[in-house]
Amino acid sequence: MASENKATVETAAITEGVQNLQTPSADGPSKSALKKAAKQEKMAAEKADKALKHATTTQAKKILKNQPKAKEGKDTKDDEKKITVGKDEDFAGWYQQVLTKGDMLDYYDVAGCYILKPTSFFIWESIQNWFNEKIKKMGVRNCYFPMFVSSRVLEREKDHIEGFAPEVAWVTKAGKSNLEEPVAIRPTSETVMYPYYAKWIRSHRDLPLRLNQWNSVVRWEFKHPQPFLRTREFLWQEGHTAHLTEEGAAEEVLQILEWYAGVYEELLAVPVIRGRKTDKERFAGGLYTTTVEGYIPTTGRGIQGGTSHCLGQNFSKMFNITVEDPNTKDGEKGPPLFVWQNSWGLSTRTIGVMTMIHGDNRGLVLPPRVVEIQVVIVPVGITNKLSEDEKKKLYEETRVLGDKLRAVGVRVEVDDRDSYSPGWKFNQWELKGTPLRLEFGPGEAKGGFVTTSRRDIPGKDGKGSIALSDLEKEVPALLETIQGDLYKRAKDAFDSHVIQVTDWKDFVPALNNKNVCLIPHCLTEECEDQVKDLSARKDEGDNVAEDARAPSMGAKSLCIPFQQPEGVVKGETKCTNPQCSRTAEAWCLFGRSY
Amino acid sequence: MASENKATVETAAITEGVQNLQTPSADGPSKSALKKAAKQEKMAAEKADKALKHATTTQAKKILKNQPKAKEGKDTKDDEKKITVGKDEDFAGWYQQVLTKGDMLDYYDVAGCYILKPTSFFIWESIQNWFNEKIKKMGVRNCYFPMFVSSRVLEREKDHIEGFAPEVAWVTKAGKSNLEEPVAIRPTSETVMYPYYAKWIRSHRDLPLRLNQWNSVVRWEFKHPQPFLRTREFLWQEGHTAHLTEEGAAEEVLQILEWYAGVYEELLAVPVIRGRKTDKERFAGGLYTTTVEGYIPTTGRGIQGGTSHCLGQNFSKMFNITVEDPNTKDGEKGPPLFVWQNSWGLSTRTIGVMTMIHGDNRGLVLPPRVVEIQVVIVPVGITNKLSEDEKKKLYEETRVLGDKLRAVGVRVEVDDRDSYSPGWKFNQWELKGTPLRLEFGPGEAKGGFVTTSRRDIPGKDGKGSIALSDLEKEVPALLETIQGDLYKRAKDAFDSHVIQVTDWKDFVPALNNKNVCLIPHCLTEECEDQVKDLSARKDEGDNVAEDARAPSMGAKSLCIPFQQPEGVVKGETKCTNPQCSRTAEAWCLFGRSY
Repeated sequence: MASENKATVETAAITEGVQNLQTPSADGPSKSALKKAAKQEKMAAEKADKALKHATTTQAKKILKNQPKAKEGKDTKDDEKKITVGKDEDFAGWYQQVLTKGDMLDYYDVAGCYILKPTSFFIWESIQNWFNEKIKKMGVRNCYFPMFVSSRVLEREKDHIEGFAPEVAWVTKAGKSNLEEPVAIRPTSETVMYPYYAKWIRSHRDLPLRLNQWNSVVRWEFKHPQPFLRTREFLWQEGHTAHLTEEGAAEEVLQILEWYAGVYEELLAVPVIRGRKTDKERFAGGLYTTTVEGYIPTTGRGIQGGTSHCLGQNFSKMFNITVEDPNTKDGEKGPPLFVWQNSWGLSTRTIGVMTMIHGDNRGLVLPPRVVEIQVVIVPVGITNKLSEDEKKKLYEETRVLGDKLRAVGVRVEVDDRDSYSPGWKFNQWELKGTPLRLEFGPGEAKGGFVTTSRRDIPGKDGKGSIALSDLEKEVPALLETIQGDLYKRAKDAFDSHVIQVTDWKDFVPALNNKNVCLIPHCLTEECEDQVKDLSARKDEGDNVAEDARAPSMGAKSLCIPFQQPEGVVKGETKCTNPQCSRTAEAWCLFGRSY
Repeated sequence: MASENKATVETAAITEGVQNLQTPSADGPSKSALKKAAKQEKMAAEKADKALKHATTTQAKKILKNQPKAKEGKDTKDDEKKITVGKDEDFAGWYQQVLTKGDMLDYYDVAGCYILKPTSFFIWESIQNWFNEKIKKMGVRNCYFPMFVSSRVLEREKDHIEGFAPEVAWVTKAGKSNLEEPVAIRPTSETVMYPYYAKWIRSHRDLPLRLNQWNSVVRWEFKHPQPFLRTREFLWQEGHTAHLTEEGAAEEVLQILEWYAGVYEELLAVPVIRGRKTDKERFAGGLYTTTVEGYIPTTGRGIQGGTSHCLGQNFSKMFNITVEDPNTKDGEKGPPLFVWQNSWGLSTRTIGVMTMIHGDNRGLVLPPRVVEIQVVIVPVGITNKLSEDEKKKLYEETRVLGDKLRAVGVRVEVDDRDSYSPGWKFNQWELKGTPLRLEFGPGEAKGGFVTTSRRDIPGKDGKGSIALSDLEKEVPALLETIQGDLYKRAKDAFDSHVIQVTDWKDFVPALNNKNVCLIPHCLTEECEDQVKDLSARKDEGDNVAEDARAPSMGAKSLCIPFQQPEGVVKGETKCTNPQCSRTAEAWCLFGRSY
């Protein structure tokens, strides 16, 4: 059936894609860059496809399997079970390996789509539970709107659709029948939902209307896909609210942003900077966008973490969402008031950011608050000297320790598999990022303690012990310490790489040293474009050899941080861009970014 | 953009749709029936479309709005705020009204898709929470697989795809570019997931592998859509598991089925019959299907509630999902074992069944355990005789009652809106199906009690009172009583309409009297087809005038109930179908159905 649909060859598809690619934050990619990206993506898809075909032939399965056997297999450390590239040496390769070998994700045979395995989905569920509780207290209610949207409705708001049109996926067939009218898969739901807001909102008493949905959206990007960060289908929540007043809307925008920051800081142990997007970077069709911005130390790039938009009255005017003025007196009749709207979204990108920040050369490092298994207990010291009874007793005691911890709410697994050595198990649980390992052997049993090993601190420094009598108190406490320390380390890394620059000559070197830069800026789009252009490493340009793996793209504005340093005097301080003659409006955070 | 895609006119599309419609449980719809359904659907879509356009013009909005004003509006009972057709007179019209006016759902401008408003989505979340807890304890882990599937993978299992192909939606374009290879939107995820099961399952130690996902799937049906029951996109969970042994798989199939029954019986207060599907009705590509079957008293039709399939080794052979035999001795090597698989799904159809069963002519009736607002408190008896202070005090006391109930976990709303009369409020909360209303006025305040009014028992019989001192104990208890009574009433209705029939002449009259029938049956597909054909009301046939609104389609087998009455002696008892010469295998439940 599918072969009948092959109406167009790929090159034509890409060329068309280029012609229509007009993202709001358009990087202005060249045709050749796009072709290259499409080619890379095709190769990745073919590779995944090949792997799959392999996996379903018995011979290939045997190669893939390679599971350690009870006797010969001890301490097998094949490539499949460890990270074979350094995080600092080949970050992209490392990222792919920690995700796949750490059991977070698998590649899929449709390019740009990925499988979220239980390990990563548990993290997403943790985020859902936390965020749901916050927004429900606030009066937000969850709902579900269809994934399909008609072209007429999709295209109602012109600025908005211009931003999304090139990436919209269209269903044109059902079975073998062509649909009379193709339907789009939502890239976001503003235009899906707002016609119904116009119908449902009949009085100021219906305000605020606050709805949220957890769903997947599709943006068929032609750029190179990256797990969690840039995927053609992704999971997110999208909140859509309507308010009587601008103040009501504005207050909510910031409240939501604070919770996005909370997801990063409190759950994922990832520090973020809160701020407002410049006009160039704000949401297509909205009034202003607030954002939490993260930072990936390994590449020195900024990354957008989540955005909370005030849409103003733009959509309410397009979709005619109005109420009568509650302040008019009896009998009087004023003009209808257009409602003030917000929309806000947080996606599974969160998980990618967290992975990139905490992981190390041994694998994932996952924060205790969101990880499925917080503690693994491994029986150790089981040698031939132990009698069967002693061994049995030790295993039994290990299981009791697990039960005790479970009883106080710790998510624990006792790894008492007989066929693997402790060392092999240690490596596996480290690869998976399990925050805390407890070892229990004859020595521990005799001394009445467990040996502890923190995932976030390698080697002896991460070792300790806890008396059995303190187990139920100390293990949860240690998990919280790990959570806090993960955050502190990431925060220090971020803080030490936010550089205040006022002299242009320091700007590009600072970027090259993996910093993001706060500069006094005029906040105009024209100037931002210049900054981006001026800060791109040219092929013939500056000393690239010094750090060949650092990104070479120009710097974009990440946000105008709410916390402004001193030093910008309006009307006096110059914009940092040497080609700009305007004065600075604020300190603006620029960086190379994802 | 979309208009460019209009390659085919509708009639052609329908004709093609007909040619390719081969559902596994094929009703064998005639071309004219399909054309009629498509026409109805188109009209519904056009109506929704029209309503939307209306809603966004100011004039139409005024007509739609019609909200009661502070003074003139009291006790306004316009059509929009009440059910205008009787459940027994026009069941389809009634169903649409209770759903839309009761705030469960709205119609959408893409035909066959519906908006799940917060009221219904809360019910779905309640089901999710309950079911998640059950399956997680069992070791099932949640995950997320992409919604897209390549044609190559989709079509791997032939019987399976034959069942779904005519309803598969295809994405063929992104932006303005044609995709090199169209991708399908999953109608279910067997073929999406199992290639990865082949890759992931490497040893018997990886078994059982139990994954579940909550997602939406798309089946672009050409039959007449119906909210919750038959929709082109619907929400569900789909569990997919792999086991070493047939016994392991079989045990899980039944355990899951028991929890599906639990969702209906314990949460939705809906009785179901557990059983196995006949070969004709089982899942395409599977080994056997177990099911919970419900019953809609108003139409006398059965309805499939949820299915738990044992797939056997069919898919594992297709996708080559194998492990080595753990029982072979060291050094020996047996043939690989194909794993045993299950899949099981429960959808938002649950909500439709619940609505149809409990609702009445005043609106929804929602079970306390799943409803967003369990109790509404309405201040009453506020007349001009009360001073402002007395009024204020009464309102304050009402709010305190609300707080007290919230403190013991009751989901409560205090409706202290000043602009509506108590009577108007009563009607609104009844329309929405709120299980329990508490009234509190000067009389109640003086007497130290609240007046109670049960939604499930109309009029005086549903009235009572609770002393304020007993509030925190008695209100939760009364809610549980309501929950239990809803179930009991529905159970009685079901039980009294399951008729044992052994003489064919009684079969069609029993169906016409809104019964489902247990008959001794040979369980062959050929015979089922005959039973269906023989039991359809022909235009020229039996006395249709007697009950013109009853369905006229032939009876299908619903299930072979696990609880078998006595009376079928294998090899002796005749199959009930007079055209069948075989003997009966079991009592089989037949009925007209959804």
